Formats: sequence, structure tokens, C-alpha cells
Amino acid sequence: MSVQLHRTHQCGKLTEQQIGETVVLNGWISKRRDLGGLIFADVRDRSGIVQIVFNEEFSKEAFAKADSLRSEFVVAVKGTVILRDPETVNMNLKTGTIEVQIIELDIINMAKNPPFFIQDQVEVDEMLRLKYRYLDLRRPEMLNNFQVRHNVTKIMRNFLDENEFMEVETPMLTKSTPEGARDYLVPSRVQPGSFFALPQSPQLFKQLLMVSGFERYFQIARCFRDEDLRADRQPEFTQVDIEMSFLPLSDFQTMMEQMMAKVMKEVKGIDIEVPFQRLSYDDAMSRYGSDKPDTRFALELVDITEIAASCSFKVFQAVAESKGLVKGINAKGCGEFSRKEIDDLTAYVARYGAKGLAWIAVTEDGIKSQIAKFFTEEELNQIVKAMNGQPGDLLLFVADKPKVVYDALGNLRLLLGKQLKLIDESKYNFLWVTDFPLVEWDADAKRYVALHHPFTMPLDADVPLLDTNPAQAKAKAYDMVLNGFEIGGGSMRIYQKDIQEKMFKLLGFTEEEAKEQFGFLLEAFEYGTPPHGGMAFGLDRLIMILTGRQSLRDCIAFPKTASATCQLTNAPSQVSNKQLKELHIKTIQFE
Amino acid sequence: MSVQLHRTHQCGKLTEQQIGETVVLNGWISKRRDLGGLIFADVRDRSGIVQIVFNEEFSKEAFAKADSLRSEFVVAVKGTVILRDPETVNMNLKTGTIEVQIIELDIINMAKNPPFFIQDQVEVDEMLRLKYRYLDLRRPEMLNNFQVRHNVTKIMRNFLDENEFMEVETPMLTKSTPEGARDYLVPSRVQPGSFFALPQSPQLFKQLLMVSGFERYFQIARCFRDEDLRADRQPEFTQVDIEMSFLPLSDFQTMMEQMMAKVMKEVKGIDIEVPFQRLSYDDAMSRYGSDKPDTRFALELVDITEIAASCSFKVFQAVAESKGLVKGINAKGCGEFSRKEIDDLTAYVARYGAKGLAWIAVTEDGIKSQIAKFFTEEELNQIVKAMNGQPGDLLLFVADKPKVVYDALGNLRLLLGKQLKLIDESKYNFLWVTDFPLVEWDADAKRYVALHHPFTMPLDADVPLLDTNPAQAKAKAYDMVLNGFEIGGGSMRIYQKDIQEKMFKLLGFTEEEAKEQFGFLLEAFEYGTPPHGGMAFGLDRLIMILTGRQSLRDCIAFPKTASATCQLTNAPSQVSNKQLKELHIKTIQFE
Repeated sequence: MSVQLHRTHQCGKLTEQQIGETVVLNGWISKRRDLGGLIFADVRDRSGIVQIVFNEEFSKEAFAKADSLRSEFVVAVKGTVILRDPETVNMNLKTGTIEVQIIELDIINMAKNPPFFIQDQVEVDEMLRLKYRYLDLRRPEMLNNFQVRHNVTKIMRNFLDENEFMEVETPMLTKSTPEGARDYLVPSRVQPGSFFALPQSPQLFKQLLMVSGFERYFQIARCFRDEDLRADRQPEFTQVDIEMSFLPLSDFQTMMEQMMAKVMKEVKGIDIEVPFQRLSYDDAMSRYGSDKPDTRFALELVDITEIAASCSFKVFQAVAESKGLVKGINAKGCGEFSRKEIDDLTAYVARYGAKGLAWIAVTEDGIKSQIAKFFTEEELNQIVKAMNGQPGDLLLFVADKPKVVYDALGNLRLLLGKQLKLIDESKYNFLWVTDFPLVEWDADAKRYVALHHPFTMPLDADVPLLDTNPAQAKAKAYDMVLNGFEIGGGSMRIYQKDIQEKMFKLLGFTEEEAKEQFGFLLEAFEYGTPPHGGMAFGLDRLIMILTGRQSLRDCIAFPKTASATCQLTNAPSQVSNKQLKELHIKTIQFE
Repeated sequence: MSVQLHRTHQCGKLTEQQIGETVVLNGWISKRRDLGGLIFADVRDRSGIVQIVFNEEFSKEAFAKADSLRSEFVVAVKGTVILRDPETVNMNLKTGTIEVQIIELDIINMAKNPPFFIQDQVEVDEMLRLKYRYLDLRRPEMLNNFQVRHNVTKIMRNFLDENEFMEVETPMLTKSTPEGARDYLVPSRVQPGSFFALPQSPQLFKQLLMVSGFERYFQIARCFRDEDLRADRQPEFTQVDIEMSFLPLSDFQTMMEQMMAKVMKEVKGIDIEVPFQRLSYDDAMSRYGSDKPDTRFALELVDITEIAASCSFKVFQAVAESKGLVKGINAKGCGEFSRKEIDDLTAYVARYGAKGLAWIAVTEDGIKSQIAKFFTEEELNQIVKAMNGQPGDLLLFVADKPKVVYDALGNLRLLLGKQLKLIDESKYNFLWVTDFPLVEWDADAKRYVALHHPFTMPLDADVPLLDTNPAQAKAKAYDMVLNGFEIGGGSMRIYQKDIQEKMFKLLGFTEEEAKEQFGFLLEAFEYGTPPHGGMAFGLDRLIMILTGRQSLRDCIAFPKTASATCQLTNAPSQVSNKQLKELHIKTIQFE
């Protein structure tokens, strides 16, 4: 029952240094092939793979046993490390110049044929991979994702510790706060009819820790949102959650940049530039049509609203006159796009609400365009000049409400960036996007909603706007963006009770509602609250980018599907009536 | 709005080195007193406290402002560090030889009078402390608990990382497994009538990671149990969860010892002895009446069943003949205990089911005892000799079923250890308790239940007992015990499908039930499972012991009360009908 052959070395770490040594390996058979009186097999453990050889000469007994070896059997083997014949060297393998001649074999456990090959770059249906997640995780590229994840959290933790941030655990069973996304609820057994909520973030608790004078807090914290899942969302996700007091924002941002620089250096071996580029939200939207621009390529949006306002094209003119925008991007060298290609782009921007995509092709022979006839030559020249149009370029325009223009052109920019291969995939472009709007008007709810969250401080100069024109107020809020992904976001928080109360009022809370939900925070603010702020990084996404994966699910050991189920355990599942009764609830699905 | 005076130094870190320097401090006013034209105040931040002084001479403006200072105001101050007059030196304060003459004061935020003093060793009702937790956490001794907690997890993480353990996050939204404690449930919105459960431990997932070949895993993981809370339980708690493959158990235990030695060295400055003492479960029960003995003092249980069996005292004899035990402890020097004192001890053991407490006082003049008359002098001499009784000693006996004898005398031993001051509070006695029973018979449920959990491997030699006499089988299970607390426990796991199936059967699962609940694990076992095992440490309790606290709640930032509520946020709370409807449940408390 007990294993007798205890590992002396890890497979992937054997080198020519060990030639002549007797070693014991523990691991999985990853391949076996027979060749004229010899049995070869690869043994795999967490460190990698090495080839072993059985031959009657080395050990009759081991050779005989080896005959039963199949893929994924668990073995312990003892043998001598030798140099391979030059013609059998495998340069694709780190241990490819050596092999181990086996004198003893212990088959620790057998294995059925796995439902898919345990190797990288295998095309396997993801549902099957998730059902047999324990086999999927055996694939070296999957294992590597978690090694990177471990390393990144280690580097961040050490950095934060060195900078005197203290890791504090906050509750998972906490209070439901309807503001924000939908909560996961947990019925209370002790208090019939009451429910805990799983935290959407540790926001309130980290702010309370600042009131407590912890000054520098962090936590790598699980958070929960019961939302309909898109490809890049999971019901539970992990935040690197950080909060600090007294530290000026710019010092804090510098610190966060240093942390990311350290991660990039140690994980990717890359020196990234600090300080990061800073873009205001307004500039990011105006230039890239996005608050998380991928700055690895230009293809910026150009505003021609002013030209459009005075032009003879009624469509442009009308938009310009009704507070709309007319903006364009210059698809360099796409002047020869076919009608079909342009139609495809038009259909693409339609997804984002654009009613049309005007185009101007600049050729050596002048301008080709379906809208040329609506402009004077002077106007056309003005536009082409504004767009820096050269012969061979295709200029693409959307005229609409600002939101539609940004969504349509921002996404068109990304599409063309990929299609035209403008993106240097080896680049890691970090930047800060700052000065987000504080609130926006929700026409359905007929009230303002917080863009970041209700605890975000307005810019000092904009505090008076809370009373006069809240939609114009900018917040001390900032996102960290990497290659077109928001990898982290945060803000300086309100620390004065009167501003916080004003903010709740603005967001449509009655005094009672504010007290009911956030009374403890408002009360805490009365007992000496320091100026504070912080941010949270989305760890899953960061790992996804660093490992070059396309899905968050590849960076979470046991993820959920888009219907929030676990293919492996079949959670969620039915529970007994006894359990429900103890929790004072019943299900109503059949009513 | 923004703070102008940015911290240059931390209060508690100022020393005579800074004399003459102009410094800026940020923090809280912790005391203020006026003395003949001077205003003194203590400023506190996370690092400690320093005294500041206002005087018209230094700054008229700051002095005037200082008049409004109250406790817990948040301030930024600028001033010059000076040496205090010798007669005003405060030796109780690390910074007690210096003070700061203030030339600029910025009152960042004001504070109401706190409901209790922000200082150590204050007698405050715990419910009030929990309601104002953010103030309670300002007390330096509370802050220190979390500093220790941060340090301990850092040391453990670094140690585990150095030993190639990989930290992997496992799901919080998982499947309910009725075996074990009561689950917290989370209704699914997407699958009406289905529920997730919050994990009682990551047990199944860490075993699956071993099947995946991760080989060395750890996680500092939040776990949940919906049980009625005793003083030392919380609905959510934190485990340092560890699992490894291929490593021989003794090597693993050595590693865990080294980890604890490192924690003790770095946190307490104490060199503890390795390897730890090892006691089998049977020996621990027999000698200490406990499977988590406090070995800082002797006062061991002595077995006199054999003597009792052949004695003339019918009570002893009957017990000895019905598979019971007669055991005693020798309360050294308590021979003069009054009848009242002995009655109190008798009442104490009665709590543990003992029907009586026999006693023999050994005096210079011979033996005094209520039961002396039932023995021959020879028998009495035998007993006194077996107990190593000396004049002045009080010998105390319980005769009953083994469980009652162990519970009663084990607890009596702890009581006397404290009363007689036998415990050296500066000692940290670590030990392993090993070879626990695998299962025990549950007379109510009429089936065996797992003592550790259903995945625990029996001792190799005891595997045949599964078929013949399961209650006699011992497990490859071990606890780490410190000063009478179980701080961690674990086992080697079953990794063969046939033994695991046999185990489930033994525990009363039908084949269908086993498949329904643990099918994915049984299936995983068919694809090449390595020998593996591990353990989990109770982090909250470990921190409690290391900080010398009496309650787990002092080591958890935002704990729950005994009724599983949060005094601060009032969680759990009512939620809207809309929320419940979305989750396809309704409450039944009023039916």
C-alpha cells in the first residue's frame, strides 16, 4: 500500500549533471512506445518530462512489469541517468539529451484511457475539459497558468508588505446592498427571514479599516456578482484589493506602477516604462472612443464636428447641431477596400448603434466616396486634411450621439487594429485613465447613478457642481489599463459625512434609506476619518493577459460555465427539504 | 479639501535622531492636556504615539487652532523635534524622550466623543466594541493582533513557496455535501430550485489538484460551517490548507514542524524543539484524557483498573469488570483540601458525566478517604504506590465508561493545572497526536461515522479490519497540538477507488448516494491518482494563541457574535421580495 520508492529528483530538473547517478522518479506515464526489445516511456511530474527506458538487461522484472504501462499510470521508478545516443536526442525537451535506464518499477496506480490527450494545443471541447478538469489541469500549459498566478500574487504580496500594507481578511457573510450588481444571498438559519450577502467587493470594510487607522490595507479577496455571464465574467472572481490613508494620490499611483513594473520584470522579464502615460477620461474617449484604450497602435479618432457643422451634407450638419459628434478614423492603406468589405464594417458598427458608416477613399486620382456629392471640394479637402488622408487611405465616419460615435468607432478601431495587424503582441502598454465623470443620469430610473461607486470623491474644484450640475462633476477616480483591458480601478473616497450624505441624496436615496443601508459608515465618518483611497486589480484578467490566454476560465482552477454551473461537481444542485426547512425557506419554482 | 501637509515621518518611529528636524505627522489626537500657556497632545498613527506641543511662541495661529482639538480628531501637523526636559521624559513611551514643537496645524477631520476610550486594557462591553468595531480596532493591542496575523501568514506563505507549494484558489460557490457539518446554502438564480453551498473546507478540490499533478498545493482559505456557535467558533473561519503528493508522511510532518519553528522564531523570538513529541491517540487519551493534551505540565492520568478489578470496593470492581476504566490523578500537595473544595471538584467532573469523584488524601498520619473502608490496607497501599502518592497529596479517581473517565479526568487535570499554577505560560509545547481511530459507531444513526473525514487512509496493517472490525482500525491521521489546542489536523488520503468505495459503504452510503455526492472524485480516482495527503491549520486559533488572547473574535477584523450576526452592519438582514423572487425562493417564517 505504501510507496517504497521515494523521489530523489524531479523529472524536468534532471540534467547531464546527474549522469551515472541512480535516481528515483515519481510521476505519470505520458507516452509509451516499444522499439526492438526496448520499452520507452516519458515520465511527467510538475517540473516536466524525462524519458525512461526498460530493457531486460537492466532488469528483467521491471521490463516485464513495464509491459502493462499505459498513459497516465502513476509510477515510481529507480534507474541510472545516461546520455542519449546523439541520434536520439530530443531538442524539444529540456531533458532531451538524457534518459534513465530503469532497474525498478513500482506501478502506484493505474489509469483508464483519458477522454482527451494530456498535451498542449489539443483541440478539445471546453465542456469536456471542464467535466474532466483534473485531467485538463495536467496539461503543461494549464499548469503554467497557475504557476504564473502563484508568482504574481507572491510578487504583489511581497511588494505590498515591503510598503507596509497589511493583509486583513474581511467577511464573506455580510449585508446585502442593492446598489451595484445583484447579490448572491445566503439565508440565515438563526434569524428566520434574514439573509447574508456574499460581498461584491470589500469596499465598505476596507474603508472602515481606514477609519480604524490601519492606514495601509490589502487583501487578495474573493468577490461575487450574480450577473448574466459574458465570456469574460465569472460569478466569483478575485480582486487584489488595496486601500491607504494620508498618502497623496500621485504617490499611491507611483507605488502601484512600481508594483506592476516588478510583476512584469519578474514574470515576463520585461522592463516597462514608468511613470505610465496618463489620459483623462475625456481624452481617452475623444481619441480612442474607449475608456480603456489599447494604445499599442494609433488609428486615433479625429473630430470633424466643426467642419461638419458648416458643411452642406445635411446628415452631418444635423448631428453637429444637435450636440452630436462627427468623428472619423483613417484606415491607412485601405483605400482599395471592396464594397463588400466596407459593408461588413458598416454592419459591424451597426451592432454598436451606428445608423451608418460614411466613407471617403483617397486615391491618386482624387476622392471616391458615396457622400462626395454632398460636399464642396473645399469641404472635402478640409476633411481629408483634418484626417491626414493620403492616397491609398480609407476614411471612415460616424455621426451620431457621442455615446454611439465612441462605441462604434472605438470598436471599429479595435477591429481594424487586428485586421490590419497594427498591434505589436509583444508590447505591454500600461496607462492610467483619470478624471472619470462622478455620476451619470439614468433615464429609466430617473436619477443619477454613480459611475464608480457612491463613495468616490469629486475633484476638489467640482464639489460645488454637486449642487448645480452633477453630471459635469469629475471624480478622483482612475483606472489602470493594459492593452485595452481595465486591469484595475479605484478612487479617492469621500471622508466627510456631509459630502457623503449629499452624494447619497444625489443618487436618490432618502435619508432613511441611506441610514438603513450605510448608517454604520456614515456614523463611522463622525469619529475621525482620515483622507483615504485605493484601488482593486482584477487578478483573473491580469493573469489571462500575462499568460496570453483568451479566457478567464483558463486562469481559474475550477471555473463556472456561462450558466454559472460547475461541470465537474454539477453545482448548484438540489438539496434536502430538511436543509431548506432549517433555513426557513422554500423553493417556488413549481408554483 | 485636499490635505496640504504630507507626512514625512511616522509618529512611533521618531527618535532622538530627528532632533532639530522639521517633520510632518499625520494621525489622530489621542490625548490633549493644557498646562500654563502650553497645549500638549499625543498624536497616534499605526506606528505608535508621539507628544506634540503648541505654544504661542512657536505659532500663534497653530496655538489658537489647537484649542479646538479633541480626542480622535484627525490632524496633520508640522513642527520641530526637540529633546524633552529630563523631568518630563515618559519612559512608558518609545518616543518618550522627545516631543514636537508645532508650527502648523491642519485639522483634517473632527470626531465626536468615542463611546469608549481608545486604549488598551479598557473594560468595555464586547457588544459595544463590536458595534463600534472601527474604534475598537484603533486600540493598539487590537492593531497588534492583525499585525501578527499578517506576519504569520507571510511567514507561512514564504515557507510554503520556498518548498514549492503552489497557492491555488478553489471555489466558494460549490456543491452541498451533507456529510460533515451543516452547509451554508446559496440559492441559484439561473437554476431554479438548486443551491450552491459555501465550502466547509477545500478538501475535495485539493484532492483533485493532486489528481491533476499539482503535487504541492496550499491555500489560505475561508471556510464556512453553519453550526451553533460556542465561544471559540465562528461561522466563517480561515484555514491554512495544505496538500502534497508523493512525499512520505514523515518528511511532510518534518516540513510542517519547520514551518511552525519559523513562525515561532520570527513572531515570538522563540526557538522551539524539533522534531515534535509524538503521541498516539491511545497514549494521549490514556495519559492525559484528551486527544489535544496540554503537555506544559504533568499531572498525568494513572490507570488502576487492574488493581480495582480485584479489590473489595464493589463500585470499582463492577466498572472494571464491565469494560470500564478506573483512573486517577495525583493532585500534589492538595491533601489538605477542605470538604468544600473536594465537593467543588466533584461537581466539576459531574459536568462531564462522572457519577462521582473518589478521593484519598495521603497524610503523614496515613490515609484519609471516604472510601478507605472498602479496601484492605494492602489494596490501599497498592493504589497509593501506583499513584506515586506522598504525604500531602490528594489522589482523585473516576470509575466509569472510558469516554466519561477521559472527559472527566482530562478536564479535571486542566482545572487543577490552572488552580495549582502548574502551567508555565511562557512555554509553547507542540506535539503530534497520531493514529486516530478511523471510524466510530454512531448509535443514533446506527452507522459508522468518519472521525476525520471519509477520505482518510487506514493504517496499511489495518486495511483488513475494514471488513472485520472497523472500529478497531486506526487511520493515517494526525493532529498538531499546541498548549492544549488542536491547531491543525490532517491525514494521508485514500487514493484507490476500491478502498474509497469500501469506506463510503462502511459509512452507510448506498452506491447511488456515493455516486451522487462524490461521483466526480471516484471517477477522478480512475485516471491516475498519486498517493497524497495533507493538513489544515486553523489560522484564527493559532493567532489567538500567539497573541495571548482569550477569544477568536479578537483575531478576526469583523467577527460575528454567538448568534452569527454582525453588530456593526446588522447582517444578516431582510432583503426585498424582488431579490427572493429572482432566486425562486420564499421565506416561510410566518407560516
